[in-house]
Amino acid sequence: MLTIRAATESDIPLILDFIRALAEYEREPQAAVATAEDLRRDGFASNPKFRCVIAEWEGRPAGFAFYFYNYSTWQGRPGLYLEDLFVKPEFRGKGIGKALLLYLAKTAVAEGCGRFQWQVLDWNTSAIDFYKSLGAKTLNEWLTMRVEGEALERMAAMAK
Amino acid sequence: MLTIRAATESDIPLILDFIRALAEYEREPQAAVATAEDLRRDGFASNPKFRCVIAEWEGRPAGFAFYFYNYSTWQGRPGLYLEDLFVKPEFRGKGIGKALLLYLAKTAVAEGCGRFQWQVLDWNTSAIDFYKSLGAKTLNEWLTMRVEGEALERMAAMAK
Repeated sequence: MLTIRAATESDIPLILDFIRALAEYEREPQAAVATAEDLRRDGFASNPKFRCVIAEWEGRPAGFAFYFYNYSTWQGRPGLYLEDLFVKPEFRGKGIGKALLLYLAKTAVAEGCGRFQWQVLDWNTSAIDFYKSLGAKTLNEWLTMRVEGEALERMAAMAK
Repeated sequence: MLTIRAATESDIPLILDFIRALAEYEREPQAAVATAEDLRRDGFASNPKFRCVIAEWEGRPAGFAFYFYNYSTWQGRPGLYLEDLFVKPEFRGKGIGKALLLYLAKTAVAEGCGRFQWQVLDWNTSAIDFYKSLGAKTLNEWLTMRVEGEALERMAAMAK
């Protein structure tokens, strides 16, 4: 039996476990440096910077989705952006990932968002096919650019 | 002489002009349906969903940058996400686009953001080379997925 619910502050250790498990899966465990205090400050105080939902299978935490809002200048409304989706290996094959995606689509519509968006690794064709079966399209032409760390510091120092 | 300043509510007509000019440039003018009321409600009331800065050349509006915040579950902090950057054709070649990017990099660092990110069309190699010269990297493996319109309604209706 599956239930999906909004995360609360008491779920922070669980959320960190999911974040770290996903970083392990992506083979960058050392990159997940977020702390409980980071998540408390940014997600469970006033003006939260993200939202999180927990999936439970027969009362046991099985997966999570971590999201926030972007904004479409064309539509003049926010969109829902899914940053992380993870289901523990022992709970896979039960439709929990799909249920989380549908839950977020419903949330997006209920909140007046014009779009629901996320990113996927381009070699993960089985995931891409699955997302397409749910109605998603790939934005093939758009390439993401990122500046971080020392490069960001250097760029900031160049500003007048 | 170039100045960059935060947009205020009285800039809404100007921001709409920039948004529509960018949509024209991308050959989708009909897609930019955002209204002044949309931008007022979402950007200039409490808890703004986006930020906007205006570049002025000798006191005349020359360009803009439109951004909001995403969130890194690995870093445990927000990032600055640039949605739109536009310089009017008659003001190009003066370094205004670069000045806007540097201004946002400085803003990102000042606000404790761990990353500064945006997207570019993959065939726009001159823009990509320029961004790389500023320290940006391309996230080549990441593909963006999107659900919107009727597909989003259908997906939402499938949720339990």
